Amino acid sequence: MRSVSIAGTGTTAFGELDAGVKELGIKAVSRALRSCDVRRDDVDALYLGNFVAGALEGQEAIAPLVADSVGLTGIPATKTEGACASSGIAFREAYQSIRTGVHDVVVATGVESMTNAGTAEFTRALGSAADQGTEGETGLTFPGFYGLLLDRYMHEYGATREQVAAVSVKNRRNGVSNPRARFRSEVTVEDVVESRRVADPLRLYDCCPAADGGAAVVLAASGIAEELTDAPIQVLGSGHTTGRSAAYRYDDLTTLEATTTAAESAYSQAGIGPEDVDVVELHDCFSAAEIGDSEDLGFFEKGEGAKAVAEGRTAVDGELPINPSGGLLAKGHPVGATGIGQIYEICKQLRRDHENQVEGAEIGLAHNLGGSGAVSTVTVLGGPSDV
Amino acid sequence: MRSVSIAGTGTTAFGELDAGVKELGIKAVSRALRSCDVRRDDVDALYLGNFVAGALEGQEAIAPLVADSVGLTGIPATKTEGACASSGIAFREAYQSIRTGVHDVVVATGVESMTNAGTAEFTRALGSAADQGTEGETGLTFPGFYGLLLDRYMHEYGATREQVAAVSVKNRRNGVSNPRARFRSEVTVEDVVESRRVADPLRLYDCCPAADGGAAVVLAASGIAEELTDAPIQVLGSGHTTGRSAAYRYDDLTTLEATTTAAESAYSQAGIGPEDVDVVELHDCFSAAEIGDSEDLGFFEKGEGAKAVAEGRTAVDGELPINPSGGLLAKGHPVGATGIGQIYEICKQLRRDHENQVEGAEIGLAHNLGGSGAVSTVTVLGGPSDV
Repeated sequence: MRSVSIAGTGTTAFGELDAGVKELGIKAVSRALRSCDVRRDDVDALYLGNFVAGALEGQEAIAPLVADSVGLTGIPATKTEGACASSGIAFREAYQSIRTGVHDVVVATGVESMTNAGTAEFTRALGSAADQGTEGETGLTFPGFYGLLLDRYMHEYGATREQVAAVSVKNRRNGVSNPRARFRSEVTVEDVVESRRVADPLRLYDCCPAADGGAAVVLAASGIAEELTDAPIQVLGSGHTTGRSAAYRYDDLTTLEATTTAAESAYSQAGIGPEDVDVVELHDCFSAAEIGDSEDLGFFEKGEGAKAVAEGRTAVDGELPINPSGGLLAKGHPVGATGIGQIYEICKQLRRDHENQVEGAEIGLAHNLGGSGAVSTVTVLGGPSDV
Repeated sequence: MRSVSIAGTGTTAFGELDAGVKELGIKAVSRALRSCDVRRDDVDALYLGNFVAGALEGQEAIAPLVADSVGLTGIPATKTEGACASSGIAFREAYQSIRTGVHDVVVATGVESMTNAGTAEFTRALGSAADQGTEGETGLTFPGFYGLLLDRYMHEYGATREQVAAVSVKNRRNGVSNPRARFRSEVTVEDVVESRRVADPLRLYDCCPAADGGAAVVLAASGIAEELTDAPIQVLGSGHTTGRSAAYRYDDLTTLEATTTAAESAYSQAGIGPEDVDVVELHDCFSAAEIGDSEDLGFFEKGEGAKAVAEGRTAVDGELPINPSGGLLAKGHPVGATGIGQIYEICKQLRRDHENQVEGAEIGLAHNLGGSGAVSTVTVLGGPSDV
């Protein structure tokens, strides 16, 4: 198996862009290609993550469409879908194809266009990540799933509503200085706990906003990557696992096994433990999710995650900065673009070029999660040696 | 790179099944697992092809859902989408993951549920394979695309309407004895050319029917496959390429480059040429498509395909039997299931167990095509040595 690096990165801002997935894909991929010294002819394959363009835009077969549109005709171009983890999976497949020697240079991208959809079609499309025959029939939504999870977590570990709200406060603060973020204003703990009820105990400001967006990276075998850029980012480990597909399938709602097993696999490949990670972008689709994720990824003991956030330990200047980009809660969640959007932010950190730079960051982790904990990808990245 | 074999196969019939993708996936995968001596614990990953369950059923994240439902929780489970080639791609990804040593045993499956949809939503969902910003805006449908292609072909090569109709006559005849086929009655050349006009010069019986269906295979590294079955089918070659994404992007509408390049790649890997193939399942979404495909795959000279069919050279007892299963035209086209459905039929041929058995078949080819020639997979399979 070969080692693999990220040579180029490109993204759109996340927000209300009035653009479809084709346009978002063309922009993100073109920017990633231009960001390094790669020629179109060098690219061997393209993987594209997308979740709901079929339902919302009537646009499928997006991978060949984007490939053909940016001058990459004649290579395999494949869409991967795994709900909110769609582009974490696209990245993973691209990575494996180089690691195993099938390809040398591969583009991985993620796209989603959501903000033009009406509320009803939007809700139905997002809900398609749940098992329609079980959770769908009960009417349980994703805010509902994470509301259940938070209820259980607070009951089990005595976390307070205010501690949980600290996640949104931190991430919204981080979003202020990130020009790629949809929300760039702060909120207080009071704002969060007094905001409109969505799925008790979750309130409006506990929930991430939808967004349009595209993000892309150019991956290359180490050796080749160094010819394409002065600052290659090494992929040190990658994990991808499927967990339980619905709430009723869990023994313990406060642990999402897809994340714990994907993390184990990524750490083991990288030869590191959670204590070695310097900066994290994780899947905070809800404030409650960030707390659970931070424990599932091994950063805090079970039941300690809420306290850690409230004490500022995960702030940009804390012992383990989590979501310095603003995360899904502030940057926004263009579902199919989120996974590679997180990797984009980590690359910027490891190249010491981030608006909320974490000092001395050498190892970063990106965590993408889809469905009711149904699927997760974890990627461990290492900075260029000469930074 | 290791060699890879198919150890197990499973399928539903293709037709009006009143079942959703979850149920179809569970059936197909369970049957494939039961067809060989594999244990659930041996399976390292699952790839699932699907096209329109998001739009028609509101069901995405199907790969983890099916994996978790059949007792395969905790492994990577990934959905691939490439319009009508969705499960050809799932097969390809599964194959590559074993060939490269990432996994030892992988399930590849394809599912689609279509017949419960209303005409308007059905048409919109199928049309999502086209570039909405160009072809979609013009109102060109897939029957329209293939109508244009046939018009050009007849103009260019002097093929007659009756020669083209012979494709439907042959495939409907083959479908009569295939219990997995949706249509099991014959049609005549007159029936075809006098049937209702759909997209001139294409008539109703030139068009494949929608269907519900699921198909699955268990792939394993050669060496392991022999422990799971007495009759492993070897994957000799696999190609996957992206072509032009819309009609206006073609220099020559009678050649779909996605097919020609995927075929070159599969033949070259297998170390064979088209003349070595004994039996073929190719993507006859329309009668016209079979003729073009048979030339793009190198079986006939440009312009000779229509004549060859009319002369019976592609019948079950002809020199190169094409679509002895009945093809998409008779068996039906549950879009995301079609690619692995074709591979299922070829395995049955190479195991000398097919209802329309091609005598002495040792090498078979399956060809899956998506969009306006946007993406193609070609798989070359070899029979068990002891048959």
